[in-house]
Amino acid sequence: MIILGVDPGLTRCGVGVIEAGAHRRLSFIHVDVVRSSPDVSQDLRLLSIYNGLVDKIETYAPDAVSIERVFAQSNRNTVLGTAQAAGLAMLAAAQRNIPVALHTPTEAKLAITGNGQAQKIQVERMVTRILNLNRMPTPADAADALALAICHALRPAGALQGGEREEHLTPAQRQWADAAKKATKRHINADRGM
Amino acid sequence: MIILGVDPGLTRCGVGVIEAGAHRRLSFIHVDVVRSSPDVSQDLRLLSIYNGLVDKIETYAPDAVSIERVFAQSNRNTVLGTAQAAGLAMLAAAQRNIPVALHTPTEAKLAITGNGQAQKIQVERMVTRILNLNRMPTPADAADALALAICHALRPAGALQGGEREEHLTPAQRQWADAAKKATKRHINADRGM
Repeated sequence: MIILGVDPGLTRCGVGVIEAGAHRRLSFIHVDVVRSSPDVSQDLRLLSIYNGLVDKIETYAPDAVSIERVFAQSNRNTVLGTAQAAGLAMLAAAQRNIPVALHTPTEAKLAITGNGQAQKIQVERMVTRILNLNRMPTPADAADALALAICHALRPAGALQGGEREEHLTPAQRQWADAAKKATKRHINADRGM
Repeated sequence: MIILGVDPGLTRCGVGVIEAGAHRRLSFIHVDVVRSSPDVSQDLRLLSIYNGLVDKIETYAPDAVSIERVFAQSNRNTVLGTAQAAGLAMLAAAQRNIPVALHTPTEAKLAITGNGQAQKIQVERMVTRILNLNRMPTPADAADALALAICHALRPAGALQGGEREEHLTPAQRQWADAAKKATKRHINADRGM
């Protein structure tokens, strides 16, 4: 299963591609940053981000696209551009019938380090180790995109996705769903400075 | 000149099309609301909004697309979906080399009623009068989309657009640019409850 992770941004949009094989074995395929110039108008910036994402999706033909969930409480200066870039990634995937998963930064940290409040450097080290890389992926947006792909690969089988209902979960699935919910709530509160 | 106005939204996205002829004569062409179901996942919602906007743009072949500028200070519950819908409208226009203009609600009110703080009902009445309609356009999103199209048509010749520089403005253009800036600032402050 090929998973393409997206760390959305209007100026820099991280893209990381991994393969998830049997026994949760993960392999690195690709990492890059899709950019747009701050010197052109916003519609042209969105067009270049969209074209860059479409190029990556068509090149790596992922079975799933894992995108960082954006919160309205995030950095005010960039949140709208970030949300728009995430929207373009969702659109590009939906146009190709590729399932989309949204994961919070807390979920990614939790899946990768076991700690939803892990430091950035810890996450980068674990991404490097999990994917057997010789050195940490750079730049940081690229590492975050790989982390989102890994998070999606490592989520428990049957973990709750966006539109799914909770009634029919097994006890293990329920446990993960509850943990993910708590993590999301913590993340929102952390963003609010609570 | 055909102008297509967009009042962005994830659940309801207003679209209004007008023709701006000689002597600032404006004629009504079309008004509608593009919808997405809240019951499907966000990527599929964005896909239906995008497809609906592309359909309108290809049907009415506008010379310009005028979109309401979204502010991070707006309603927290809907601002990200609104920003994403605005992003899709920008993308759909940019993909067809159609110029995009972003106008604030204050600019639209100012252009249409002469008062940047006008009530919604005043704007709707003026839209009805300016376009010689028999009755007020409904629903409200549709009226707002027409207002954005009219605002773009009535802006002073040479009014400052997104990426343009201010150094080479005539005194009249400078006056409008200053008024637009002040209006934008007032709008942001109003949104912040200041």
